[in-house]
Amino acid sequence: MREPLERLCRSIGYEFGNPGLADTALTHRSAGSCNNERLEFLGDAILGFVIADYLFVQFPEAAEGELSRLRAGLVKGDSLAQIARQLELGKFLNLGPGELRSGGHSRGSILADAVEALFAAIYLDGGYESARKIILALFDEKLSGLTKKSQQKDPKTRLQEVLQAKKLPLPVYTIVSITGEQHDQCFTVSCEVADLDLGTEGRGTSRRKAEQDAASQFLRLLDNV
Amino acid sequence: MREPLERLCRSIGYEFGNPGLADTALTHRSAGSCNNERLEFLGDAILGFVIADYLFVQFPEAAEGELSRLRAGLVKGDSLAQIARQLELGKFLNLGPGELRSGGHSRGSILADAVEALFAAIYLDGGYESARKIILALFDEKLSGLTKKSQQKDPKTRLQEVLQAKKLPLPVYTIVSITGEQHDQCFTVSCEVADLDLGTEGRGTSRRKAEQDAASQFLRLLDNV
Repeated sequence: MREPLERLCRSIGYEFGNPGLADTALTHRSAGSCNNERLEFLGDAILGFVIADYLFVQFPEAAEGELSRLRAGLVKGDSLAQIARQLELGKFLNLGPGELRSGGHSRGSILADAVEALFAAIYLDGGYESARKIILALFDEKLSGLTKKSQQKDPKTRLQEVLQAKKLPLPVYTIVSITGEQHDQCFTVSCEVADLDLGTEGRGTSRRKAEQDAASQFLRLLDNV
Repeated sequence: MREPLERLCRSIGYEFGNPGLADTALTHRSAGSCNNERLEFLGDAILGFVIADYLFVQFPEAAEGELSRLRAGLVKGDSLAQIARQLELGKFLNLGPGELRSGGHSRGSILADAVEALFAAIYLDGGYESARKIILALFDEKLSGLTKKSQQKDPKTRLQEVLQAKKLPLPVYTIVSITGEQHDQCFTVSCEVADLDLGTEGRGTSRRKAEQDAASQFLRLLDNV
């Protein structure tokens, strides 16, 4: 039995002017033609922008590669499904008979899509500021965790820890090239791990920064393996 | 010789409160450590959202797959480079000596990145509404073209034309399944082209809609081949 949406709205902290939008956001395609697929498209874009904007401001020292990596970790399906589970979103979903029988209420991909669609519904109902506030509130725990983690450890340290945890050899950093004038050089450094057939290249104005960039990209690569 | 930014700002129709932001947006990484890479990350996200929002509203009948396909076509590097060339952005770029020598001013990827970075600079300088207006103004021609095209031709017709132009056989549509209650059925239809080892599946509340969806996805597939 599907629970009434009021409870979900209370736990999100948003009241819909047009509750039909929330209803569509929670309707899986298995339940009918008026479903959340289009809203999910829009919600994914809002989420991507809100998170990019937040990271850009919060991490003024992070290179583009590090920002992309951080965002990818935040907006991936697993993270969204986790937020959906905290909201007990499964109880509010509108699913077709097949999905109902096969446990669609707790399927990660269905939950993640519904969360994104819900962001779009809030945007359409209350405007960009409302959507931004609620996205940041729902991501609050993950974002604060990120800030703490990044304050504590740089990418090279994190990569070393990840590799040690996997019982892999330490990465080897090699200077590939140094270009530019004396006062404004650009270092390119490669990062390789012997037992993995993977390598990245980082760039920066010092050898250290280029190594951090290469390590950051390596971490990103490992996230996607 | 790099031209002064005022002329570019005039042709975009935006005056920067902080011209330093525009300067950073136009600085390639080859020219120094304070370059446009971080801004490009943010600009890409703004652009993705503005275009998603526009398409969502303008194409109320388009399925998620069609919206994604339309957006991918608009925000791809080629389209951005084209806009950059219309603005003669190359003349305003700040490049390192190596890129200067090798014709970086007219390289598509450098131009596309700079356009995205410029969107972020406008956003940071003037807020979301300013960025949205200018993005939509710069994309105006492409967006109107899209509307006309979509009003004239549906995905099945377009797919047929594309295949004929490539001297390939016509697509074959086959019903894969029909699920749901009588009054709210969901059709799944496959679309295959004999000489290509490619196939897609579309869904919709009627056979016709499912075929259009499958054709739309096939067009998307062909865009990426």
